[in-house]
Amino acid sequence: MGTSDKIAAVHKYVEAFAKADINIIREIYSDDAIVEDPVGTPVHVGIEDVCAFYDGALGSGAKLELTGDPRCAGNAVAFPFKAVTGDFSVEIIDVFEFNDDGKVVSMKAYWGPDNM
Amino acid sequence: MGTSDKIAAVHKYVEAFAKADINIIREIYSDDAIVEDPVGTPVHVGIEDVCAFYDGALGSGAKLELTGDPRCAGNAVAFPFKAVTGDFSVEIIDVFEFNDDGKVVSMKAYWGPDNM
Repeated sequence: MGTSDKIAAVHKYVEAFAKADINIIREIYSDDAIVEDPVGTPVHVGIEDVCAFYDGALGSGAKLELTGDPRCAGNAVAFPFKAVTGDFSVEIIDVFEFNDDGKVVSMKAYWGPDNM
Repeated sequence: MGTSDKIAAVHKYVEAFAKADINIIREIYSDDAIVEDPVGTPVHVGIEDVCAFYDGALGSGAKLELTGDPRCAGNAVAFPFKAVTGDFSVEIIDVFEFNDDGKVVSMKAYWGPDNM
């Protein structure tokens, strides 16, 4: 999987929030995807659990703004961004890991109280 | 392990490069630490292998500049920075995972050709 495909997945992810479109989330993630957001909290396992999580996240009205270039390495990409919901924002770093089909099989989100 | 200790480890890491001081690297990492830099390349396993890797990295004269706040979550911290060596720079995101003793037991560095 090339760098451009990984970066395209990041931009689709931003678009999913911009449009509050769960179908884009379904397109990005694999059926067996695991999402840990933030790291240290219970993981969402499998596409239905993952989509249920994103139904809430997209429904909150949060919009994402990249704050630096995505960093592609191996089967992964890490990217820094700001999640903005009204007057509230959080600085986050997400790490996507891709499977051989180019789908995101693991997402870990790094953020905490200090980043709000 | 508290957020402030994790952020202190990030600042010590920056200091290790600023001073080209391998002893700071030894202080940060656990004896059984694993370093993958960049992700997708062979890992350095154990403190001696890790220090051999950093001997080269520190010796290159690279200096680190944080480009955003460290994001603490669970047992980890992710942080964006620029590694500058003379006129050359690379945008990187590192993820540290800590053990119960507060030492870094895993480091993954995300960067690639597009980030230079």
